[in-house]
Amino acid sequence: MPKIVDHQKQREKIAAAAWEVIRTKGMEQASIRNIAKQSGFSVGSIRHYFPSQASLLTFAMNLVSERVNERIHSMSFEGEPFKVMKEFLLQFLPTTKEKEVEMEVWMAFIIKSLSDDSLKEASDEVYKGIKFGAASVIDALKKLKLLKDHLDEEYEVERLFALLDGLALHAVLQKTEFSTEKLERIIEQHLKSLCK
Amino acid sequence: MPKIVDHQKQREKIAAAAWEVIRTKGMEQASIRNIAKQSGFSVGSIRHYFPSQASLLTFAMNLVSERVNERIHSMSFEGEPFKVMKEFLLQFLPTTKEKEVEMEVWMAFIIKSLSDDSLKEASDEVYKGIKFGAASVIDALKKLKLLKDHLDEEYEVERLFALLDGLALHAVLQKTEFSTEKLERIIEQHLKSLCK
Repeated sequence: MPKIVDHQKQREKIAAAAWEVIRTKGMEQASIRNIAKQSGFSVGSIRHYFPSQASLLTFAMNLVSERVNERIHSMSFEGEPFKVMKEFLLQFLPTTKEKEVEMEVWMAFIIKSLSDDSLKEASDEVYKGIKFGAASVIDALKKLKLLKDHLDEEYEVERLFALLDGLALHAVLQKTEFSTEKLERIIEQHLKSLCK
Repeated sequence: MPKIVDHQKQREKIAAAAWEVIRTKGMEQASIRNIAKQSGFSVGSIRHYFPSQASLLTFAMNLVSERVNERIHSMSFEGEPFKVMKEFLLQFLPTTKEKEVEMEVWMAFIIKSLSDDSLKEASDEVYKGIKFGAASVIDALKKLKLLKDHLDEEYEVERLFALLDGLALHAVLQKTEFSTEKLERIIEQHLKSLCK
């Protein structure tokens, strides 16, 4: 039987190596050569999967959002609504080592997207995705009649979205200051401040 | 009369060129050679002021916080307290082209500091500076007896700080979405939510 190669898996392995280089050495070190060294793939094999560095980086960036989406889709959304909202919002914060890695890489990508148009589209997609997540929470609280009356919903979406990304940034920058418990507490307190 | 060279000014000119390279081409292009090209200084002159790329980048990073500090020190802090707080908090947001440039560069630096220990100290200093700014506002609101009773002040500092950095990040990423008026409105609404 011929050896079956799962090409998507191979691409993901290469992208994971790119993440590791970006996270430990910085975006400026994310050359095909360094990613080859990190992954154990040859430069030639990497070029087979990714004809350019830009295509590799775009794939590696999209993989971050896929991982976040997978986690959200695996949530049951069952139980007490307030707890479900909290759990949902915590998906966007580095409460585990795995998420911490994703968010460090993610931050490096969005900053690179400011000077690299090839990443702008993927960056905008995730921006919209997280904003949609924040909007979904405000909307759900309203439908469940938990949201305080007369709140400016558009503003509350922007505020929740900024709070999430600001916290993610701070937690990545100051790991020892931001325990999982602290992040949970801040999200819980903010959600409570929106509810009747 | 011998020509008097203001060395600090020369260093600032080189740092400004480094900002421009970082902002338009990305941190990975911020080599001494590219900064020389951008600044009009020779590689040799740059090496005279900055013996290493790390010392240049640290200086350029510190210059961002100096600029923010200068703006804050030039504020009169006179007038209606609520307005003064709002004006103070807006110093940390990209409401002008000048601040937009600073914040883009700033974000690039803090991400680089995750994988580059030589920038960690300068990055931590600004982190503490902005957090101190947020804490000063909560503290002032309390002393002025404007702050709502029974607020968890430690939490409010973290929330305000995260809101500021999250908004700065979003405004830099989505320039057309975040007008100065929108940023002012969000800060005003958040401040109002903290006040009696």
